[in-house]
Amino acid sequence: MSRGAAAGDAPGTPGTPDTPGTPAAPGEPGPGPEPARRRGRPARGSEQEGPGTRERILVSARTEFAERGYDKASVRGIARGAGVDAALVHHYFGTKEQVFTAAVESAFAPAYAVPHAFEAVGSEELGERIVDAFFQVWEDPRTRHQMLAVLRSAVNNERAAAVFRRLLAENLLYRAAAVLDVPDARLRVELVAAQLVGTALLRYVIRMEPVASEPLEELRTRLAPVVQRHLTG
Amino acid sequence: MSRGAAAGDAPGTPGTPDTPGTPAAPGEPGPGPEPARRRGRPARGSEQEGPGTRERILVSARTEFAERGYDKASVRGIARGAGVDAALVHHYFGTKEQVFTAAVESAFAPAYAVPHAFEAVGSEELGERIVDAFFQVWEDPRTRHQMLAVLRSAVNNERAAAVFRRLLAENLLYRAAAVLDVPDARLRVELVAAQLVGTALLRYVIRMEPVASEPLEELRTRLAPVVQRHLTG
Repeated sequence: MSRGAAAGDAPGTPGTPDTPGTPAAPGEPGPGPEPARRRGRPARGSEQEGPGTRERILVSARTEFAERGYDKASVRGIARGAGVDAALVHHYFGTKEQVFTAAVESAFAPAYAVPHAFEAVGSEELGERIVDAFFQVWEDPRTRHQMLAVLRSAVNNERAAAVFRRLLAENLLYRAAAVLDVPDARLRVELVAAQLVGTALLRYVIRMEPVASEPLEELRTRLAPVVQRHLTG
Repeated sequence: MSRGAAAGDAPGTPGTPDTPGTPAAPGEPGPGPEPARRRGRPARGSEQEGPGTRERILVSARTEFAERGYDKASVRGIARGAGVDAALVHHYFGTKEQVFTAAVESAFAPAYAVPHAFEAVGSEELGERIVDAFFQVWEDPRTRHQMLAVLRSAVNNERAAAVFRRLLAENLLYRAAAVLDVPDARLRVELVAAQLVGTALLRYVIRMEPVASEPLEELRTRLAPVVQRHLTG
């Protein structure tokens, strides 16, 4: 994953539809939907701010976290990638941890479709729908890049892991478990998550053969019944 | 994981039994079982070398890779942790990548028991035996620490991922698949690995609840039939 290739996403996706709708996690001090303008140090150039600025900073943050990891990522580097002052990044998001939280939230946005898959509860299609939602996120290079940024940081940094844990639980796993409505639903959902996260790790990160090159249809056929079994078996 | 706590393992395990028996991977230029003495810069103190030196360096390397990640880990840091000259580390192992390879090989040593679990092929105990072998490695703090070092580095660095991929395949997955003796055995074994690596990630790294605190017996009961199904279903 080269910085050039990843940064190439930026111009095409300044108004990416998943970002404005990103729900703020409960108790999170993050920015509101309408950040106050120019509270910090004034920006040098007027083109620094605008409707796409927040999104541009998030795109740069994901690239920075994906490629440098949480520890080495810096607000200065994120600002440079977005073509703005570091002060503007602080103004919009706050600390590095808060930028990371916002980046994780927006990275998770495509995964919010997963709990909808749980509408198939009680049917034999549940496993299949969840596996489909999972691969929709991971097979798309743009959303895969975001998920990798999050996963890499969470594996290597305790604070990043805490952010990942909270957002994954609140926005995805516990919501899905609530729909499932059995006493051990959270454990069942987490063992599904383990199967899928592990598959993502071997297919997209470690690139172990044959799973890395296996046709999607074959993986779907094998994973769906296992997911179904975890949830309702 | 503090450096202090991890380094605390070192004095107690200089002659750790898994290291001398570590098989060299085919085609690997790594050190032979009897490294030539004093080819590089001579060591300063005579207590630098000795029967436990190679093992002491490996223990320090695992700690260094676990805590700093592959990119930030240095031969100098590994040498410092082992109380030897950096030249001696180069003398025994070569480059940083070669030290990493040796550290991964020794970290995998306890996992070599897993293919033995495949002797239960054809019986309904196969899933249970594999899950037991997996948790034996991950529930022991010392071997867990080693596996975490490998996993963290592989997730964040392409060269470390290549070492991990090769050793995991050659020493564990492909050997297990060979025993299974069906055409799609490697894919089956890798989907088992995905379930188990994902479980390790959520339980020991991200520490997602409830899976992080779940009694082992409950996890065994849930995972064994899924593993069995992947392999023989």
